[in-house]
Amino acid sequence: MKKSLDTEILSVGTELLLGHVTNTDARDISEMLSKIGINVKYHTVVGDNPERLRQCVRIAKERADILITTGGLGPTCDDLTKQILAECFDLPLVKNEEEEAGLYEYIRTGRGLTENTFQQALLPEGCTVFHNTCGTAPGCGFEKDGKIVVMIPGPPKECRAMFEQSAIPYLRRLSDEEIVSHSLRIFGIGESAVDDIFADEMNAMVNPSMAPYAKECDCLLQITAKAPSEAEAEAMIAPVKAHVREVLGDLIYGEDVECLEEAVMQLFQKTGMTFSAAESCTGGDIARRFTELPGASAFFMGGAVTYTNAVKAELLGIDRDMIEEKGAVSYEVAKAMAEGIRARLGTDMAVSVTGLAGPDGDGVHEVGTVFIALAVEGQTFVRETHMGQKRTRSFIRRMAGNHAFDMMRRYMAGLPVLTE
Amino acid sequence: MKKSLDTEILSVGTELLLGHVTNTDARDISEMLSKIGINVKYHTVVGDNPERLRQCVRIAKERADILITTGGLGPTCDDLTKQILAECFDLPLVKNEEEEAGLYEYIRTGRGLTENTFQQALLPEGCTVFHNTCGTAPGCGFEKDGKIVVMIPGPPKECRAMFEQSAIPYLRRLSDEEIVSHSLRIFGIGESAVDDIFADEMNAMVNPSMAPYAKECDCLLQITAKAPSEAEAEAMIAPVKAHVREVLGDLIYGEDVECLEEAVMQLFQKTGMTFSAAESCTGGDIARRFTELPGASAFFMGGAVTYTNAVKAELLGIDRDMIEEKGAVSYEVAKAMAEGIRARLGTDMAVSVTGLAGPDGDGVHEVGTVFIALAVEGQTFVRETHMGQKRTRSFIRRMAGNHAFDMMRRYMAGLPVLTE
Repeated sequence: MKKSLDTEILSVGTELLLGHVTNTDARDISEMLSKIGINVKYHTVVGDNPERLRQCVRIAKERADILITTGGLGPTCDDLTKQILAECFDLPLVKNEEEEAGLYEYIRTGRGLTENTFQQALLPEGCTVFHNTCGTAPGCGFEKDGKIVVMIPGPPKECRAMFEQSAIPYLRRLSDEEIVSHSLRIFGIGESAVDDIFADEMNAMVNPSMAPYAKECDCLLQITAKAPSEAEAEAMIAPVKAHVREVLGDLIYGEDVECLEEAVMQLFQKTGMTFSAAESCTGGDIARRFTELPGASAFFMGGAVTYTNAVKAELLGIDRDMIEEKGAVSYEVAKAMAEGIRARLGTDMAVSVTGLAGPDGDGVHEVGTVFIALAVEGQTFVRETHMGQKRTRSFIRRMAGNHAFDMMRRYMAGLPVLTE
Repeated sequence: MKKSLDTEILSVGTELLLGHVTNTDARDISEMLSKIGINVKYHTVVGDNPERLRQCVRIAKERADILITTGGLGPTCDDLTKQILAECFDLPLVKNEEEEAGLYEYIRTGRGLTENTFQQALLPEGCTVFHNTCGTAPGCGFEKDGKIVVMIPGPPKECRAMFEQSAIPYLRRLSDEEIVSHSLRIFGIGESAVDDIFADEMNAMVNPSMAPYAKECDCLLQITAKAPSEAEAEAMIAPVKAHVREVLGDLIYGEDVECLEEAVMQLFQKTGMTFSAAESCTGGDIARRFTELPGASAFFMGGAVTYTNAVKAELLGIDRDMIEEKGAVSYEVAKAMAEGIRARLGTDMAVSVTGLAGPDGDGVHEVGTVFIALAVEGQTFVRETHMGQKRTRSFIRRMAGNHAFDMMRRYMAGLPVLTE
């Protein structure tokens, strides 16, 4: 068997081309395939049109070894994937008795019988049938003309379940490699700076490979290795990871995590500390992000969203004259907000944010000026940031939250809590 | 100009083929194009590989009139879309002075300068430059060899913003018909119920057409007409809209708005009222969602996120014994939270939320049980909802916020504030 099996995922459905739904099937299948060492080289989406579908199958036969289709296996008249694939691979469709019996049973339990219901029991001659545990349309796999073809229904739940239960075992026997991939998440320098640091190395790397990705307000390095076993792949990745960690140091906030708050959650689970938040321009986003994580209530006690000076005084006990004098967007107010909420709620730590998320300024500071404070026992750190006037309101708010999480992370990990 | 311009969206990025991210760009672009009458016939995804990208461009040139690429315009060495497209269309890349100046400005405001930063200012000769308002890499559009090419950055926010602001106006001139589309946003019944009500009518309609779409926690009906002029298209839509409004009544919360909070913002601008929020299971999401809208500070004064009973007592002045007796997830606590924050911050209205977002229950209520309260002068309304145990944490939190916004909307619009 060839070492590398180039794979194309061909999704069939006009609703995808109209933008009514997102092609999550291709994503789900790609993720599952990458874990068993099968390389996806192309995703294609085409509508419920016989001629264009035929042409896409022709292209896939030329450039791929494995063709996986999603969608178009159901009982309606625009479900034509099986017919076209059978035609392109010169296979007759034959009735599958077991699936037909299943359809009779389905109708008996009260679902509507339509003219085309039994079309679903027709499958390419000699194929391996994939029974549908979440719906009615079966899928299948077959080999013909040196190609491997897998057909899976389109509804995301059916697709995921059938691919995992039937298609993965069907395809696994084709691959003699395991793929392992880890990501190192970075906050404090951007994707292009990371790329600059490692560009020469990355260009020279094949297996393991390394690539940077920009995320919304941070970035990551993805390190991937292929080997006969998972352990060997891990062993290939380990020195690369160690090298990156040595170069980037504490700019790396986590491994295989999705966001800063997830890394912070891991530290809370270690330290058992509690925190609270006082938010002005982030408008509750720090609280919202942290409480999106299950289990947040063990560490986050609560917070205040203080959009006016009066509310800052009322909920955080800050002197109104001080706010008037220093301005709501200031070092002093950020400090007083964090200290105020911490004292009020009696938490180990507290963070606060005050700044200008735009689009309007305050006549004093540029949009994108944000002060972020972290108050702990006996000490308060204030970080002043200037994100640039071109940033969107949404970017500024998310980035401000990232700074707050980064300061908590640094404090709990025993790293210097940078204030610039 | 041809009536029908077949379009292919070619997304470039190995991360898509590995299943790390979903191709939302193709969905977003398809949705926007369908509104201006441009038909998308293919989506393709290919990795950061020059040879395969070249081959995909060749296929697209054969089968499409308009080629839209997403991704691969950034500053890293695997960003190669512009180079390959310029090569395939035989156009040199030339430096764009304005974009280069913008990159200098960007670096000046503190982001890292790298060797490849300025690669982003290189653009195909003679193209129309699309400035990036959310990031650094510009996009562009050009016509060559009888084809129209549009290149857009990959990060979803940048893609959406640039496509809407620059690519849509660039492509709109290609169509000799005006397409007008309006959406009626609906909260209170689901997409399938809406579909059920209007199915026969929708099947019989061609121009104008009407289609329902499910959104995260609400749905909409999109009504679209094509005509030689905008006024004629509007005139075709008007009676359809009137009919839908008659059937659905106050379940329609807005026209051409994106979310409930946007409809609520319009009502605040009319009424000049103020509000505050006390949130438990939504964890700040109501405050966050409303303050995502520019100008929020005129109406939203502030709020409290109260994750523990102690914090509910401290920030909202609720009697702890009452919380213990009734339980934190209860009609009484929801009512006291809304009344507490309203009294404390002196706002015209206040909303509160307390409930179980899961995954863990409290042994009393099912996950998905949420109480939402609206307090106004002299009266407090409490809505009890049961969203079902199968819902995700994120769905329950968003839906709870929608209920809070819906109650404010109904109150300000003089409609009955439903409590069920």
